[in-house]
Amino acid sequence: MTEQLGSAGAAGLVTLGEVMASMSATRIGPLHTARQFDMSAAGSEANVAIGVVRLGHRATWLSRLGDDELGQLVRTTLRGQGVRVCAATDPAAPTGLMIKERRTGDVGRVVYYRAGSAASRLSPADIDPALIERARILHVTGITPALSQSAAEAVGYAVTVARAAGVPVSLDVNYRSRLWDLSTAQARLRELVPRVDVIFASVDELPVLGAHDADPVRAAEQLLAGGPHTVVVTDGANVACSVGKGEVVRQPAFPVRVVDPVGAGDAFVAGYLAGLLDGFDEPARMRQAAAAAAICVSAEGDWEGLPSTAELGLVDRGDGTVMR
Amino acid sequence: MTEQLGSAGAAGLVTLGEVMASMSATRIGPLHTARQFDMSAAGSEANVAIGVVRLGHRATWLSRLGDDELGQLVRTTLRGQGVRVCAATDPAAPTGLMIKERRTGDVGRVVYYRAGSAASRLSPADIDPALIERARILHVTGITPALSQSAAEAVGYAVTVARAAGVPVSLDVNYRSRLWDLSTAQARLRELVPRVDVIFASVDELPVLGAHDADPVRAAEQLLAGGPHTVVVTDGANVACSVGKGEVVRQPAFPVRVVDPVGAGDAFVAGYLAGLLDGFDEPARMRQAAAAAAICVSAEGDWEGLPSTAELGLVDRGDGTVMR
Amino acid sequence: MTEQLGSAGAAGLVTLGEVMASMSATRIGPLHTARQFDMSAAGSEANVAIGVVRLGHRATWLSRLGDDELGQLVRTTLRGQGVRVCAATDPAAPTGLMIKERRTGDVGRVVYYRAGSAASRLSPADIDPALIERARILHVTGITPALSQSAAEAVGYAVTVARAAGVPVSLDVNYRSRLWDLSTAQARLRELVPRVDVIFASVDELPVLGAHDADPVRAAEQLLAGGPHTVVVTDGANVACSVGKGEVVRQPAFPVRVVDPVGAGDAFVAGYLAGLLDGFDEPARMRQAAAAAAICVSAEGDWEGLPSTAELGLVDRGDGTVMR
Amino acid sequence: MTEQLGSAGAAGLVTLGEVMASMSATRIGPLHTARQFDMSAAGSEANVAIGVVRLGHRATWLSRLGDDELGQLVRTTLRGQGVRVCAATDPAAPTGLMIKERRTGDVGRVVYYRAGSAASRLSPADIDPALIERARILHVTGITPALSQSAAEAVGYAVTVARAAGVPVSLDVNYRSRLWDLSTAQARLRELVPRVDVIFASVDELPVLGAHDADPVRAAEQLLAGGPHTVVVTDGANVACSVGKGEVVRQPAFPVRVVDPVGAGDAFVAGYLAGLLDGFDEPARMRQAAAAAAICVSAEGDWEGLPSTAELGLVDRGDGTVMR
Amino acid sequence: MTEQLGSAGAAGLVTLGEVMASMSATRIGPLHTARQFDMSAAGSEANVAIGVVRLGHRATWLSRLGDDELGQLVRTTLRGQGVRVCAATDPAAPTGLMIKERRTGDVGRVVYYRAGSAASRLSPADIDPALIERARILHVTGITPALSQSAAEAVGYAVTVARAAGVPVSLDVNYRSRLWDLSTAQARLRELVPRVDVIFASVDELPVLGAHDADPVRAAEQLLAGGPHTVVVTDGANVACSVGKGEVVRQPAFPVRVVDPVGAGDAFVAGYLAGLLDGFDEPARMRQAAAAAAICVSAEGDWEGLPSTAELGLVDRGDGTVMR
Amino acid sequence: MTEQLGSAGAAGLVTLGEVMASMSATRIGPLHTARQFDMSAAGSEANVAIGVVRLGHRATWLSRLGDDELGQLVRTTLRGQGVRVCAATDPAAPTGLMIKERRTGDVGRVVYYRAGSAASRLSPADIDPALIERARILHVTGITPALSQSAAEAVGYAVTVARAAGVPVSLDVNYRSRLWDLSTAQARLRELVPRVDVIFASVDELPVLGAHDADPVRAAEQLLAGGPHTVVVTDGANVACSVGKGEVVRQPAFPVRVVDPVGAGDAFVAGYLAGLLDGFDEPARMRQAAAAAAICVSAEGDWEGLPSTAELGLVDRGDGTVMR
Repeated sequence: MTEQLGSAGAAGLVTLGEVMASMSATRIGPLHTARQFDMSAAGSEANVAIGVVRLGHRATWLSRLGDDELGQLVRTTLRGQGVRVCAATDPAAPTGLMIKERRTGDVGRVVYYRAGSAASRLSPADIDPALIERARILHVTGITPALSQSAAEAVGYAVTVARAAGVPVSLDVNYRSRLWDLSTAQARLRELVPRVDVIFASVDELPVLGAHDADPVRAAEQLLAGGPHTVVVTDGANVACSVGKGEVVRQPAFPVRVVDPVGAGDAFVAGYLAGLLDGFDEPARMRQAAAAAAICVSAEGDWEGLPSTAELGLVDRGDGTVMR
Repeated sequence: MTEQLGSAGAAGLVTLGEVMASMSATRIGPLHTARQFDMSAAGSEANVAIGVVRLGHRATWLSRLGDDELGQLVRTTLRGQGVRVCAATDPAAPTGLMIKERRTGDVGRVVYYRAGSAASRLSPADIDPALIERARILHVTGITPALSQSAAEAVGYAVTVARAAGVPVSLDVNYRSRLWDLSTAQARLRELVPRVDVIFASVDELPVLGAHDADPVRAAEQLLAGGPHTVVVTDGANVACSVGKGEVVRQPAFPVRVVDPVGAGDAFVAGYLAGLLDGFDEPARMRQAAAAAAICVSAEGDWEGLPSTAELGLVDRGDGTVMR
Repeated sequence: MTEQLGSAGAAGLVTLGEVMASMSATRIGPLHTARQFDMSAAGSEANVAIGVVRLGHRATWLSRLGDDELGQLVRTTLRGQGVRVCAATDPAAPTGLMIKERRTGDVGRVVYYRAGSAASRLSPADIDPALIERARILHVTGITPALSQSAAEAVGYAVTVARAAGVPVSLDVNYRSRLWDLSTAQARLRELVPRVDVIFASVDELPVLGAHDADPVRAAEQLLAGGPHTVVVTDGANVACSVGKGEVVRQPAFPVRVVDPVGAGDAFVAGYLAGLLDGFDEPARMRQAAAAAAICVSAEGDWEGLPSTAELGLVDRGDGTVMR
Repeated sequence: MTEQLGSAGAAGLVTLGEVMASMSATRIGPLHTARQFDMSAAGSEANVAIGVVRLGHRATWLSRLGDDELGQLVRTTLRGQGVRVCAATDPAAPTGLMIKERRTGDVGRVVYYRAGSAASRLSPADIDPALIERARILHVTGITPALSQSAAEAVGYAVTVARAAGVPVSLDVNYRSRLWDLSTAQARLRELVPRVDVIFASVDELPVLGAHDADPVRAAEQLLAGGPHTVVVTDGANVACSVGKGEVVRQPAFPVRVVDPVGAGDAFVAGYLAGLLDGFDEPARMRQAAAAAAICVSAEGDWEGLPSTAELGLVDRGDGTVMR
Repeated sequence: MTEQLGSAGAAGLVTLGEVMASMSATRIGPLHTARQFDMSAAGSEANVAIGVVRLGHRATWLSRLGDDELGQLVRTTLRGQGVRVCAATDPAAPTGLMIKERRTGDVGRVVYYRAGSAASRLSPADIDPALIERARILHVTGITPALSQSAAEAVGYAVTVARAAGVPVSLDVNYRSRLWDLSTAQARLRELVPRVDVIFASVDELPVLGAHDADPVRAAEQLLAGGPHTVVVTDGANVACSVGKGEVVRQPAFPVRVVDPVGAGDAFVAGYLAGLLDGFDEPARMRQAAAAAAICVSAEGDWEGLPSTAELGLVDRGDGTVMR
Repeated sequence: MTEQLGSAGAAGLVTLGEVMASMSATRIGPLHTARQFDMSAAGSEANVAIGVVRLGHRATWLSRLGDDELGQLVRTTLRGQGVRVCAATDPAAPTGLMIKERRTGDVGRVVYYRAGSAASRLSPADIDPALIERARILHVTGITPALSQSAAEAVGYAVTVARAAGVPVSLDVNYRSRLWDLSTAQARLRELVPRVDVIFASVDELPVLGAHDADPVRAAEQLLAGGPHTVVVTDGANVACSVGKGEVVRQPAFPVRVVDPVGAGDAFVAGYLAGLLDGFDEPARMRQAAAAAAICVSAEGDWEGLPSTAELGLVDRGDGTVMR
C-alpha cells in the first residue's frame, strides 16, 4: 500500500480550528508541585481529524500557526498522524500553548496561553474554498468562534461554502465558558444551528443552544426543528442518544478503566463521522463513536489513544486481558 | 495581597517535630528493583503545618536540621510552602532521611535513616517559649517523643508553655512501633493525654492510650475523663467520630480514587485544626477534615495534594470530571 | 547467613528456555506514540526460577545467549536474582528481544525480535545431564519446543534425562499461537503430556492437549489418564483447580489491584513448585501459588513483583494498608 | 541559628521585576523535537536576590503575580530560597511563562509568553516605599522598563524613593531587543543612568547607554561623568572591568566547564552586590562576582548553581576534583 | 504560506533505503547497565531527505515497512518532518530495529535487529519509476545494496530509471562491514560508480571503490575517470575535499562541541545536495554541507539537529553564545 | 562457555569491605535543588572485584549486609556482575547508604548514612579463612579499618590468614578524612604497610603512610623498605609510577573525555591486579591499569564503565569515533 496523501482527489473530512502545543504534568498534584512535563500538541478539531484518519479516511486541517518551533511541533504532529495541514504561518503572532495539570487522578485543569495566538487571528482569508468544496464533511466546533471575531467569521464562511457546495456540516458545541461570555456564545452558536446537519452536544450544552427541555431527547428534537437532521447528545460515561427525525438511537458507554479522560468527546465525534463516511447506519455509527471514545480514554494523551479500525475490537475484551 | 510572613503578630499554629528528606521510588515493586527516586521532604507535624497554611492560616515549625544540603532541602520546601521555619542548624548531626518503597499499588514501606539525626537531638533549649505563647494552637504528635529522651522533653516543655499561656494543645497519637517499644510509648503518651485539649487517634491507637473499650466512642469517652475536651477517632476509609462531652459527630470518608495514601491522617488533622482556627462548629470541622484527607490522597506525595480553601470543593465532583 | 550459590549439592529446580531483553513502554497508548522505554529481561521459565529462589530454593537455568550486551543483561539479571545461569554463548546468533506496548491500561501487546535468536538454537548438546540428575524438579514450558526443532529436542532430551533419574517434571503449557501453528503445537505438546508429572494449563489450553471436555475438571482427568499425577487448571482471575487422582482442590484468586498482569502464570507456577519443594500439601501449594500470582501482578514487571516468603502475607492485607 | 526572615529590621537588597515560570527542554536539539521539560521559575532580578541571600544577606522582591498555580510556583520558589516576596496577586492577568530550547550544547533560545502578564502590569502603586527606604541597596534592571509604560514608571518611582532615602541604586542594563525597540530603550535607559550609583553593562550594551567609545574603559568613564560612581563592564568569558573615578579593576573570568550559561550575568551582579553589602573593597567585590558567575554556570538552571559563601572556594579547585 | 506536500509537481530529491526504529540508551556506559531508552526512527537516506526538506526542498522516500507499530513510527516520523513516504506495507516481515549504546561519551555502538526486515525485502517492484522520473536528484547509499540481493536490484533499477530520465544520481558509499563482506561490497559498489554523478566517500572508503592512491584527491580523480563528475571526500572533523574535473574545493569542518556524532555524514550530504538544488556553486555547496554537519552533531539524535536555512548561521557564533 | 561461578576451585581475588546503596542526583547543581536520583550500589573493594571479573577472573567479596531491600540491592548488583557474595545478613543494623551530589560538572560531593551500618559491624568472625587461603590475591583498602574497631580487626585477620597461606596482599590506601581522624588512620594504616605486597597510594596519601619525601618515587622507596615489593603511586590525570626494588615504571593517563570521575582509582587497581593474575609484566600491568581507569571514567557510575578485556582497545581510538 503506497501513500497517497495530498492527491488531487476528494478531501474526506475538512476541519478548521486551533491546535496548541500542550505541556502535561507527569505528576498528579497541584501544578506548582509538578516538576516534569511531556510535550505534545492538541486541539479539538484536529483530534477529530486524527481519529478519522486512523479509521481509514482522509482529513485536512485549516488554521494559522506562529513562525516558531511550537508551530513546527503542531505541523509535525498532525502531518505525522496523516492529517493534511493547510496552515498559514503568521509572522506576528505565536502558536498557542496550554499547560495541563493533573490535580487529582480524576480532575484535570488547563492553563491557556492562547490570547492573541496565531490561530485566534484566523479569518475567512485563510479558508481555501476549493478544499471545502471537495470535502465529504466539514466539521466545526464552538471553540473556534470563541477565539475572536475574525475566527468566528472564518467558521461562518466555511459553513457557507460547504452549504453552497452541498457538503454536509457537523458541529460539536464544545462550549468553553473561559473563552467567551455566555450571551455572546449563545448568539454565535445559535446562528450556526440552523446551518449545520449534525450537532454533537452534551446534556449541559443543550440550553446554550436554546433547547431547554429537561428531557434531552425532547430538547434535541427542538433543535431538529431548526435545520439539523441529527442531534447527538452525550452524557459523560452514561448513555449517548442520537436523535433524528423519527428515530432515537441509544448507545451506552463501554466500561473501561479510564487512564486520561481528556479527548473523549473528540474521539466520539471521530468515530461517528468516520461511520458516516463509511455509510454505516445510525446504530453502527453510534457504536463506533462509543468504542472510539472508550479506547481513547484508556490511554494517555488527548488523541494518542484513538483506535485504528483494527483496534476497535479492544472494547470487546474483558478486563486484564493481555495479548502476547 | 502582599505577603506578611513572619510579622510580629500572632503565630497561628505552632508545631515541632522532625522533617526528613524523602526519596520515593517511582516504580511499583520491591525496592531493590527500583531504579529512580523522586526527592521531597516530609514529616507529620510539618505536613499539618502546610495544610493549615493552604487553608489560610499561619504556621510555624520548630526543629533542628543538619548543616547539610538535605537540611537545606527541608528549609526550602517548608519555607516555600509558607511555613515559618525556626530550626537550629546542628553542626554535628545529619538531617534524617527516609526511603519510600511502593511494594504494591496499595502497600508502601519506609526505610528510615533517622537514628541520631539532628531532629532526634531536639531538646527544650530549642523551643522558643515566646513563639508558643503567641500561638493560637500548639500541635504535637506521638512521633517526636519517640525520637529521644530530649525530644520527649521538648514536647513536654512546649505543652507546659502552651498550657501556662492558655494556648490549646492538639495531639495526634501517630504511634510508630518501629521507633520505640510499646511500654515506653504507653508511658510517655499517657502522660500527655491529660495535658492536651484535642486528641486524634486511630481506632488501633486507643488502647495505647489506655482506652480499651471495644466501642470507639466509649473508649474516647474514657479519655475525655482525663482532660481533653475532644477526642477524634479515625478509622481509615470508614467513618471518623469526634467525641466531645455530650456530643458525637460522625463523618464518613469521601469516596475517592486513592493515588497515594500517605499523609491522609495529617491532612485530616490540618483540615480539622484549620476549622478550629476559623471558628467552625464541630460538624464543619469534621467535614473539612475529611475533605482535606480525601483530596490529599488523590494526589502524589505526603503533603503535595493538600487542598487550598478554593479546592475543598473538589470532593463534591463526581468521578472523571475534567475542568477545562 | 552466607551465600552458598553454586555448591556441589542438589540443584533444586532446573529449567530451560529463552530469556529475552525486554523494552517496556513507559506510556500507555499505541507503541508508535511511546517515547521512553525501561529495559529488563524476562522469559517464562526464568521467571519461575526467580520465583522459586525468592521462596527459598535453588534454581538453575539452561539456555543459550548471544555474545552481546543484551546477553550480558540477561546473565546479570538472572544471576543477580540468585538463579544459577548455565548458558552457552553463541558467537553467531543474537540474544532475543521483545518490546512491550501498553495499548491501554488493561491490554498489553508484545513485538518479538526472537526469530533466529541464540536461544532458538538451543539443542540437546546444551543440556548438561548431570545438572538435571541432581535436580529436585525439572520445569519446562510449551514455549521452548515452539522456538525450533532443535529446541524441541532439547526439551525432549531434558525430560528423558529427568525421568531416567527419577526427577519429577513439571510442564506449563503456555501455548503461544504466534510462535507455531496449532497442529505442530498439538503434536509436540501431546507427546510431552504422558512424560510429565505436573501440568499447568489454562482453561483455553486444555483442548490443545487433547482434553476437550467442557468441564475443566473432567478435561483435566482425561489428561491424568495419560501419565501426570496432577493437572492444575488456571482461569485468569477466577478459581484455579488442582486435579489429582481422586482429589480436586479449588483455590480462588486473591483480589488485588492489578498493576501489571504479565507474569501471573509464571508466579503461580513458582508458588506451586516452591510448595512442592517444601513438602506442602496440595491446598497449601495452591494457596501459595495464588498468593504469589496476586502479589506479582500488584507490581510492575514480569517477575520483579514476585514475593519472598516473608511477603506472602501481603495478600492478607486489606486495600490501602500502608506500613510505616 | 534560628530563622529571622521578615523581621522588622533593615531589608538588605530590594529589587523589583518579573519572574516567570520556565520550562526547560531536557534534550538538546530543535524545540519541536524535545519531549520532556523541567519546570522552574526565574527572572533576572530575582536571580540576583537569590544570589545575595546565598551569600548571607537579606533580599526582598517586589512584583505582581497571576492568581494561578504558576504564580504559586514563583512564590514557592523564591520564598523557599529565602527571598522575601512582596507580590500583589493580579486577578486579571496570568503569570508569565518562558520555554527554554537548548538548540545546541552552546546555544539556547527562549520563547516568551509574557505579553500582558501580571508583572507587565506592575506600577508605582505596587511599590511600598517603606521597603525601599529600609533597604541597603535597590537593584533594578533594564528588563522591567521594557515590559510596559507602568512598569517603567514603577522602576522610576522606586529609584526616586531610594535616592530620596539615600539608598544606593544598582542598574544591570540587560538590554533585550525582543522586548522593546532600540530608540525607546535608549530613551528610558539613559534617563536612569544619572540616577544610579552602580551600572553593570556588557561591552555591547555601552552604546545603548550613549557611551560609544571603542575602548570599554573610556566608554565607562563617559558614563561616570553622568552620575554613577562605578561602571562594571562585562565581556562574557573574558576580563571584566570595574571603572570608578580614578580606579580600574580588572578581573578575568575563572575557567570552568560550562554546564548552562544562562544566569552568568545575574550571578556576577549578585557576587558584586553581596561584596558591597559586606564592605569588601573593589577587587574583592570583582573577584566574588567572577567566582559567583563561574560557579553558577557550572550547574544547571538560571540560579540553582549560585554559590553559598562556603562554596566560593570551588573556583580554586582544579578540573576533575572530587570531594568524598 | 500554505502546505503543498504531495502536489503533482516535481519531486525534489528522491531516495530509497531502510529506516529503522531506534532505541537510544539515555545513560553513558555498557548497554547492559542502561535502564532507559528513548525511541526515534532513523536511516541514512531518510536523514538526508529530512535535511533537504529543512533546507527548503521536497523529498520523497521509497521503502517497505512492516505492518506493525514500529512501521507506523517510521511513517509518522518522516511524514511529520515533511518527507513524502512511499512505502509498501509488508504483511510478512517486521520493521527493522536498532539499539544504540553510548559506551563512552565519544564511542557509540549499535545492535541491529534488521535481518529479514521488511526493508531488506525491497525490490524493483517497490520502485515507482514515475516518481524518479520527476525527481531533480536521486540519492542512494551503499547500505541498501548490502541489505539483500533484491534490495541491490532495487537500487540498480532506480539508478537505471534516473539515468534514462536524465535525473542526476548521488551515491553516499556508507560502507558497513557488518552488513556484507568486503568482496561483495566491492563488486556491487564498483558497479554503481560509473553510473552516478556525485559520490560521497570517506577517506577510508575510497579503496573499497578501487581508488587506492594514498592521496585522497588523486584517488578521487581515479574515480572521476569512470563517470562521476564530482567526488566529495570527507575526513571526519578534518578538511573535506570536493574533487571535480579540474577543480578541487577544500572545506574545513566548523569547530563545534559535539553532542552526538551520529548523522554527521548524512547532514553533510543533505547540505551539499540542497546546495545543488539551489544552484549554489561548489564552494557554497561545500560550505553548506560542512555547516549542516556541524550543527547536526551539536544536538542529540541522528537527524533531529539538522538545521533549517535560518539556522545555518549558528556555525558563525562563538562558543557559549546564548540568544534570549 | 558454561558458567562456573562458585566452583570449589581457586577463588581468584578475594576482598572485603562495605558496599552501600547509592543515590545519584541526575541534575548538576546543589543537592537541595535536585529532583531525581538513580539508584545503584558501590564500594571501593567491590568495584575492584567487578573490574577483575570483567577482565576474566574470579572474585569474592566478604562483608555484612542489613536484612533489608537495600542489602538485597547490593547482593543483586554484585552477584549480577559475577562477583561471589559471602555476606552475613545482620538482623540489627541497616545497609549503608550514600547520596551523590553533582555540585558542578567537575565536582561531586557525597553524603553518607553509614554510621552503625551492618558493614561497620564486620568482624573477624565474618571472615571465612578457607576462602582467603584459596585466593590468588587478597585485596584490602584503608576504608574498611576506618569503619570501626571490629572492621579493622577483620582486615587484620584477613591479612594474617593470607600471609600464613602465602597469598599475596594488595592494599589501596584510600584515606578518607571524614571517616576517621588522621592519627588513628596513620596508626592503623602503618601497621598494615609491612604486611602487604602491593600498595596503591596517591601522591597525597604517601605522607599518611609515613613516607614524607617530596619526590614520590623516593617516598615509595621508603615504603618498600618496610616489606611491600611494589608501591604504585597515582597522581590523578597525570603520570602513575610503579616503584619496585630496582625498577620504576611510568605510565601516563590516557586522555579521555571524563563523564564521571568517581571510580577511577578502583578501576586502576582492578586493571593492575587483573594483569597480575594474568602474569603480565609490570609495564603491561600499569598500561592495563591506566586503560581501565580511562575507560571507567568515560562512562557514568562508579563501576558501570569498567572495561571487559575486549573493550580495553577503546583507549586507542581517537575522539569522536563511532563504531556502527
